Amino acid sequence: MSPQVTGTPVNQATPGPELPGLFARYRNSVEEALTRSVPESNGDDLFFPLRYHLGWVDQYGAPAESSMTQGKALRPTLCLFACEALAADTARALPAAAALELIHNFSLIHDDIQDQDVERRHQPTLWRLWGLPRALVAGNGLQSVGDLAILNVAGGEVPPERALRVSQILTESYIEMIQGQCLDLDFESRTEIVAGEYLQMIAYKTGALIRSGVEIGVLLATDDPVAFNAFSRFGSSIGRAFQIRDDFLGIWGDQATTGKPAGNDIRRRKKTFPVVFALENAGGNSREELLRIYGQEELTDPDVDNVLTILEMVGAQKQSHSITETSAQEALAALDPIALPAWAKYEAESLVDFLAHREF
Amino acid sequence: MSPQVTGTPVNQATPGPELPGLFARYRNSVEEALTRSVPESNGDDLFFPLRYHLGWVDQYGAPAESSMTQGKALRPTLCLFACEALAADTARALPAAAALELIHNFSLIHDDIQDQDVERRHQPTLWRLWGLPRALVAGNGLQSVGDLAILNVAGGEVPPERALRVSQILTESYIEMIQGQCLDLDFESRTEIVAGEYLQMIAYKTGALIRSGVEIGVLLATDDPVAFNAFSRFGSSIGRAFQIRDDFLGIWGDQATTGKPAGNDIRRRKKTFPVVFALENAGGNSREELLRIYGQEELTDPDVDNVLTILEMVGAQKQSHSITETSAQEALAALDPIALPAWAKYEAESLVDFLAHREF
Repeated sequence: MSPQVTGTPVNQATPGPELPGLFARYRNSVEEALTRSVPESNGDDLFFPLRYHLGWVDQYGAPAESSMTQGKALRPTLCLFACEALAADTARALPAAAALELIHNFSLIHDDIQDQDVERRHQPTLWRLWGLPRALVAGNGLQSVGDLAILNVAGGEVPPERALRVSQILTESYIEMIQGQCLDLDFESRTEIVAGEYLQMIAYKTGALIRSGVEIGVLLATDDPVAFNAFSRFGSSIGRAFQIRDDFLGIWGDQATTGKPAGNDIRRRKKTFPVVFALENAGGNSREELLRIYGQEELTDPDVDNVLTILEMVGAQKQSHSITETSAQEALAALDPIALPAWAKYEAESLVDFLAHREF
Repeated sequence: MSPQVTGTPVNQATPGPELPGLFARYRNSVEEALTRSVPESNGDDLFFPLRYHLGWVDQYGAPAESSMTQGKALRPTLCLFACEALAADTARALPAAAALELIHNFSLIHDDIQDQDVERRHQPTLWRLWGLPRALVAGNGLQSVGDLAILNVAGGEVPPERALRVSQILTESYIEMIQGQCLDLDFESRTEIVAGEYLQMIAYKTGALIRSGVEIGVLLATDDPVAFNAFSRFGSSIGRAFQIRDDFLGIWGDQATTGKPAGNDIRRRKKTFPVVFALENAGGNSREELLRIYGQEELTDPDVDNVLTILEMVGAQKQSHSITETSAQEALAALDPIALPAWAKYEAESLVDFLAHREF
């Protein structure tokens, strides 16, 4: 049974925004680029679990309902958007878009192993189906398939120097991602974490790959360093807005839209932003109570409710909203100096609005 | 206690060859290239376990005796050898050499997780010291550091197209390596494996990265496709000789030189070449006995001895030698069409002799 959620969802009266048009605009292209990048499977090889994880086949190899199993493809969408906004073309960025999605998915396969998560996007996780060694190896395989995809960006509009630079940015960003994962692991065993450290951790863990996707889109469109820096800041701010909203939904989200039970991150004793904020700001007794509950192996429903009460008391929900809103505004402000076509300005606004207010 | 080894080591009377001069020739360069490629650590980050795994610091961060903990650096040595033999220069190949060693080491970190090995090169493994999540992430970090190193091969003598091609060959080869790891995992749950399948598996799992190291060395030296193909076959044959000798040492090697107890691979129920050969060639009763022993959770000393007797009976040791010898001859024959300087011919022969007859 999932716990009663006692906090008041701020957006309860107004349902969150729909998936903005930008995702639909690139969905087919991203899908095709991914299809071109991941080899066919003979049903019994490395590529089979990859195709399963990507939502293309079910665990028995039958074609799957893709809409049910796939993610939003945020990173490739951002990459293609930056490229099209600046160069009125997306074709040259498709291999990079595929690479970004593949590398994001590689990190999910390994995350599921680390967190021992049994389900992802309403399906059993790879390690759950095929055991740890195979899932570990499949994750590595997906990363390598992504690495290979991005090298294919060379040719046509993209000179080899530029392709090398793009590969370098991608690789540097997932070293940052991994550094973020290390910090996140450190946080698991620490209780003195302040919000600033947490924001730095997510800037690495989530932000780096989102930012590099945007940067790569720019690099494939133009040499202009002003555009690069503006979009880079756009990407960083979007990453922060996205993650803090994710943290919000992990506690106060609706199971029907998120696919995860309410209070899920608390039950799993995750130290996401609201909890870190409470650890920093709760008074003596509340802080002790929070530490006591998070010190347990298993949390009961009343434990989860108690944590929710403490979060409510310290204003963790409001603070999460505030950071998301600020980051969303910073994202749009970063693009201000750049002359963009009207459609791109509109789409950037819709996207940022969605990321900051989404319910899924 | 380690078991009594009843098989007669073929080379018992003649000690194996010393590490050939080629390793010493490049040791310092490889070491320096690695040092340049792996960021410094603040003692508490992603890079600390990487530096530990590479044998540079102990688990407390104190500088370690490098000679005790490091591997032979076979892959970078082969890469630098191919480049120097063809272009009388190694400087341009140093970033690639570092990348090869880093990626090989990344695979070892993950192998240790999969196999739950507690020791590597006489030291506790990463997962053993810091737990699975950190070791998993550290492995990924090491791969990424390697990916970044190889991108640095561009510049000077190496045009960007060539650097892209080199990255592509490296990435393709570790997709092969991962395919080999998948096949190897399949073998764990199968009893009908024939020697041919096993040789294909190791061509992927071990051979691909060794071969690509050699190929990369060539590509950084010359455009000549004849040289590329010759060295590519040289690399493939060396990979096979190396792995079958490894399999031999895993069963009949001397603990004092290999660092692993004799019969170690049998005790761990590894299906290496001698065992696969026995599964294919042992008569009914012996085969049943072998399957029965390998079907147990834990092997006793008498179990290990029984397996050794069966291997002896079917001539698995002799067959292992024979494949190693043939592969060694094929490696040298592959280079015959290429005009190489005398030193390179001599070093190639010493290297192949070492790989085929080494005791460590």
